[in-house]
Amino acid sequence: MIGRTHGIHAEPTTFGLKLAMWLMEVRRATERLTRAREVVSYGKLSGAVGTFANVPPRVEEYVCAKLGLDPEPISTQIIQRDRHAEYLAAIGIVGSSLDKFATEIRHLQRTEVREAEEPFSEGQKGSSAMPHKRNPVSCEQISGLARLLRSNVQAGMENVALWHERDISHSSVERVILPDGTILLDYLLAKFTEIVKGMRVHPERMRQNLAATHGVIFSQQVLLALSKAGASREAAYQMVQRNAMRAWETGEEFQSLLLADPEVRAILATAEIESCFDLGYHLRHVNAIFQRVGLA
Amino acid sequence: MIGRTHGIHAEPTTFGLKLAMWLMEVRRATERLTRAREVVSYGKLSGAVGTFANVPPRVEEYVCAKLGLDPEPISTQIIQRDRHAEYLAAIGIVGSSLDKFATEIRHLQRTEVREAEEPFSEGQKGSSAMPHKRNPVSCEQISGLARLLRSNVQAGMENVALWHERDISHSSVERVILPDGTILLDYLLAKFTEIVKGMRVHPERMRQNLAATHGVIFSQQVLLALSKAGASREAAYQMVQRNAMRAWETGEEFQSLLLADPEVRAILATAEIESCFDLGYHLRHVNAIFQRVGLA
Amino acid sequence: MIGRTHGIHAEPTTFGLKLAMWLMEVRRATERLTRAREVVSYGKLSGAVGTFANVPPRVEEYVCAKLGLDPEPISTQIIQRDRHAEYLAAIGIVGSSLDKFATEIRHLQRTEVREAEEPFSEGQKGSSAMPHKRNPVSCEQISGLARLLRSNVQAGMENVALWHERDISHSSVERVILPDGTILLDYLLAKFTEIVKGMRVHPERMRQNLAATHGVIFSQQVLLALSKAGASREAAYQMVQRNAMRAWETGEEFQSLLLADPEVRAILATAEIESCFDLGYHLRHVNAIFQRVGLA
Amino acid sequence: MIGRTHGIHAEPTTFGLKLAMWLMEVRRATERLTRAREVVSYGKLSGAVGTFANVPPRVEEYVCAKLGLDPEPISTQIIQRDRHAEYLAAIGIVGSSLDKFATEIRHLQRTEVREAEEPFSEGQKGSSAMPHKRNPVSCEQISGLARLLRSNVQAGMENVALWHERDISHSSVERVILPDGTILLDYLLAKFTEIVKGMRVHPERMRQNLAATHGVIFSQQVLLALSKAGASREAAYQMVQRNAMRAWETGEEFQSLLLADPEVRAILATAEIESCFDLGYHLRHVNAIFQRVGLA
Repeated sequence: MIGRTHGIHAEPTTFGLKLAMWLMEVRRATERLTRAREVVSYGKLSGAVGTFANVPPRVEEYVCAKLGLDPEPISTQIIQRDRHAEYLAAIGIVGSSLDKFATEIRHLQRTEVREAEEPFSEGQKGSSAMPHKRNPVSCEQISGLARLLRSNVQAGMENVALWHERDISHSSVERVILPDGTILLDYLLAKFTEIVKGMRVHPERMRQNLAATHGVIFSQQVLLALSKAGASREAAYQMVQRNAMRAWETGEEFQSLLLADPEVRAILATAEIESCFDLGYHLRHVNAIFQRVGLA
Repeated sequence: MIGRTHGIHAEPTTFGLKLAMWLMEVRRATERLTRAREVVSYGKLSGAVGTFANVPPRVEEYVCAKLGLDPEPISTQIIQRDRHAEYLAAIGIVGSSLDKFATEIRHLQRTEVREAEEPFSEGQKGSSAMPHKRNPVSCEQISGLARLLRSNVQAGMENVALWHERDISHSSVERVILPDGTILLDYLLAKFTEIVKGMRVHPERMRQNLAATHGVIFSQQVLLALSKAGASREAAYQMVQRNAMRAWETGEEFQSLLLADPEVRAILATAEIESCFDLGYHLRHVNAIFQRVGLA
Repeated sequence: MIGRTHGIHAEPTTFGLKLAMWLMEVRRATERLTRAREVVSYGKLSGAVGTFANVPPRVEEYVCAKLGLDPEPISTQIIQRDRHAEYLAAIGIVGSSLDKFATEIRHLQRTEVREAEEPFSEGQKGSSAMPHKRNPVSCEQISGLARLLRSNVQAGMENVALWHERDISHSSVERVILPDGTILLDYLLAKFTEIVKGMRVHPERMRQNLAATHGVIFSQQVLLALSKAGASREAAYQMVQRNAMRAWETGEEFQSLLLADPEVRAILATAEIESCFDLGYHLRHVNAIFQRVGLA
Repeated sequence: MIGRTHGIHAEPTTFGLKLAMWLMEVRRATERLTRAREVVSYGKLSGAVGTFANVPPRVEEYVCAKLGLDPEPISTQIIQRDRHAEYLAAIGIVGSSLDKFATEIRHLQRTEVREAEEPFSEGQKGSSAMPHKRNPVSCEQISGLARLLRSNVQAGMENVALWHERDISHSSVERVILPDGTILLDYLLAKFTEIVKGMRVHPERMRQNLAATHGVIFSQQVLLALSKAGASREAAYQMVQRNAMRAWETGEEFQSLLLADPEVRAILATAEIESCFDLGYHLRHVNAIFQRVGLA
């Protein structure tokens, strides 16, 4: 499929590479959440100001062991809130990754692109008025709800600077953002898993879109071939540019224009020109990338 | 010194425990920043869409090794921005911890509390009008600048959801928040280190403040002693409350009031009452806490 | 041009309506910024705690008049920071509107859409490798920098709750966000003005995209026409859906399919079917909208 | 009462001035919320992309009139979200003002300050262990919940940049933050009103705290009196500083020290020294301030 930078066709890539990239980001997310869970899995029973005035440390150790928590080595009336801020930040960042994945699908599902779509059950109505309309509403919901997870991080960081041995300003905030943030991320992860499982992918549209710019996406190889065959960089650039621009504007095939350009033909043979339009050239390292990430 | 919850005197603690708590939070901060540095220490040279179209993977590996970076196993035109969001979140959380430490000093430096002060060089003028005035302006600056570090996290998380193989919306933001955030945290760490090194601590004020509530901070021990000696919980509570309230309101010593209360005296002997007012009782586990955090 | 909801072709609209909507949002932005400027245009000279202890109120009035400011009726050592928070919020919201406008252009400039583009000077190189590539980098910069303006709002709101008659925690923050935010918004407004002035619009691409779904965007009118001519809502929906789906999937023209569908033809005459495919029907109220906003 | 800057005693002010300042900020809050309500009180019925394709504008006007809304002059499938961002920003700023008021009370209720307290019903238990303990928990709750209102602003501003004629990413966010933010602000306003109504104020503590620095808060007047009587600024400063410092450190009365200082006595008579310690001097413009804000 075509790779896009700035929303503009750039060079070929593969859909598998997109998914492999997501996989790696999901692995980072898993690691981040695992660590965040550890960071908050502490308990305390050290009394009103953390001195164990009336209950000795061994009670804390006993109770925490029962609860599957580590005893916080030193605490005030509470466990310090940098731990919870880190937990909320992990959730906010993972939500932002899901937002990115969802945004990719939303782009690919655009009417003009239509390379992939979030799942759509047969009976589902896209729109009562326009029966063909299939909207990426689940992905949009993920993009939206990630904003909530991000904004929770702000409140979580403001909770860190409590007064002395504690004030209770963090408590009302945490009653909202700790359960809501955790449950919401769980929902988004479940939702996105469903989306990936049922995603519809349209390889024929990917091929059509690859061809939509009439071959100009291969202009860089032509440039390199001309240079290699002896043309000055400047001359090569001009030859490529005038033909690429014409292909872009008129819809003529870039390859045909090059084959018909006497100046180009004086340097490159037909086969040499044709070999520039080779998807395989772009994709020859794909397997090496899959090997890097343990998928090949 | 007195421990305070909700800004109200609660039970005795020690200044050493406050510092030991900071130390543990600084250790978590160090770990957080170390990890965050690792998370962003990746490089890439994988071409316009991440396929190594014109430069093979071994060049990336060679260049990254030279730069002391790990090669990002899979990338688009860029390294994915969840890494940078994690880096900025770490900075924002560490800034929030510094904000908390600074807030503690600001409270302790209040005229009414005056138990500790940020450093104040001899020649320094507190105020042209009021020569005695020493303001915790460095700590206030730390509290303020932490807000910038927190707000950067928001922008960092918004940078994650770029389009396809990249758009350049993150770039202008990162030119500001990555260097500014890093430099600012470095400044705040250096500033706070100076503050801790030169902090003035006033043990005599701590003792005065411990006594400021005329002994009512020991009311819980009296309650326990009465119960242990056979008083019903309810009766004990009433005895304690009426004397504590009177001490609080009139400024009489709680201990003297108890010694003069016939109902109390029917249950507790003089020595038993006196032994309730024992700082040592509150602090007997302090050493165990220091051992927990490796300081004793 | 086609109107899009969820990134999916919905019903026809016009480019003029998009611009008129921006205009109205810019007017709201102007009003918001005008008001925000008024809210912060206050001065004070009321002394260390706001009591005019050593300088009487008339001096404040005199100085403020000289500076073109209103005297703050009541102040502490400073003017209260809810005023500055409102100023920063106005900037953050206006930045978010610019982000929306820029995002629209970025979408319209996508290779697959290509209906409008940000200005591109003749000599400018889109890409050294691919001479045809024109990236909406200015719009992406606007989207990015709006994130900074949004994050400043957070810091501005945290500055409100200062201690007593002032602490100086807000000051270091404001030295950054007040000038930077103001200058940055000015830059973004200037940048976006240039973009709108030089924007390239491609009406022929708009017409092509209108036709890209082979007429199914008119399915609602067919539905209404069938119902009006006596078909049950259910029967009408089935007739429309089967033809719309086929047009969508095969690329055949929806109108031709309807004209060839015996069940449809039993209800609607050729002219009646053809009249459903009327852009004018969709656009007949456009002038009324322009009148509403004072543009017609 | 003493005015405090940086938490340090500065110059005398009055509790009435604090309340008058709150009143003015509440008036700005009311104006801000009134305007924010107007900004979002718009309705639309302009169809799927805002063209009134199937329902003419007069229906929108009719329905909006019934609902007490203004018809949005131009819309897409939705009303643009800069309106809702402004509404949420107003809520976030008003919440931050309440946070400031609550923080003031929390400071005044500190054990060492005890000049004012949030309401405390007779039967209420401050702490099961320490019967005298009265914690400003309602004010702390206000400080905490304001963080939620601030974080909502972030999500509200991210909702502005929707795609084309709408995507639905804003919807799930708004279902949470619009009702929750509105209800929460209502709760905080009701809560804070109760607090102000039932607040306990301790004038005798205010007087004690005014005296707590042994008169050094009047050092500026002594400085002015010495200068006026002919001492050089430098000499006057030294005389004031050495006596103020000694009063601060030893607890002796500043006035007594001045009366016993031969160098001071060579310049100022007893009555001149005594007249420097005049609260009335500091408060002589208070009535003018109340007049400014319409309270006198």
